[in-house]
Amino acid sequence: MYEFNLAIDLPFDQALEAVRNALAAEQFGIVSDLDVQTIFKAKIGKEIPAYRILGACNPALADRVIAAEPNAGALLPCNVVIRAQGPAQTVVSVMDPVAVLGLSSAPELKAVAVEARARLERAVGRLRA
Amino acid sequence: MYEFNLAIDLPFDQALEAVRNALAAEQFGIVSDLDVQTIFKAKIGKEIPAYRILGACNPALADRVIAAEPNAGALLPCNVVIRAQGPAQTVVSVMDPVAVLGLSSAPELKAVAVEARARLERAVGRLRA
Repeated sequence: MYEFNLAIDLPFDQALEAVRNALAAEQFGIVSDLDVQTIFKAKIGKEIPAYRILGACNPALADRVIAAEPNAGALLPCNVVIRAQGPAQTVVSVMDPVAVLGLSSAPELKAVAVEARARLERAVGRLRA
Repeated sequence: MYEFNLAIDLPFDQALEAVRNALAAEQFGIVSDLDVQTIFKAKIGKEIPAYRILGACNPALADRVIAAEPNAGALLPCNVVIRAQGPAQTVVSVMDPVAVLGLSSAPELKAVAVEARARLERAVGRLRA
């Protein structure tokens, strides 16, 4: 598997706010924010439920990745999908950095990925609480 | 390997512009733009050469990915690293969608990834020309 998931019993906007707060509490900045629903409407005229992809980055961890393997920015940041599943439920899917950075054979990337995953799991734990 | 690379004999700013144009010519929109150099300076006080991560998205291909596997936005968009290697050379590293989307076992994702890679390879070919 390339991701881990959580269904939250909150409307989309509240879930999005909760995810932002949970990531911030684990020292992840939001460095990108793709509103896929709006992009699809504008570019291909397709309507989908609310769908966002946040890019979460812990600069100290990202620095270790890039210092070890300069091209590995191609595997950053860690993506977090937040998508509406009906009016009162939202699904959160977090890219598993161990799977994605594991595409590299560099040992340091695996070490950083384990740390990043632990932080992301704690962030998901905050959403569960 | 998780990426494919090209060294261009252009200063960073000109290379960045050339990459944007090459991606646009292959119907990729730039949906995110991470200035890693600025982020590292601001957040961890570290100086690195110019380093950007662009998120490239072809909405029609992204739609097929998400329609086949709703969580797979966690593997989008396709990242393109542009980084300075001295004053007159720039390295471009493109995330290989076949490797990254290949983390899913869904056949449709593999099919889309092959199309996306072909487009990205054509974009890199434009930079070579």
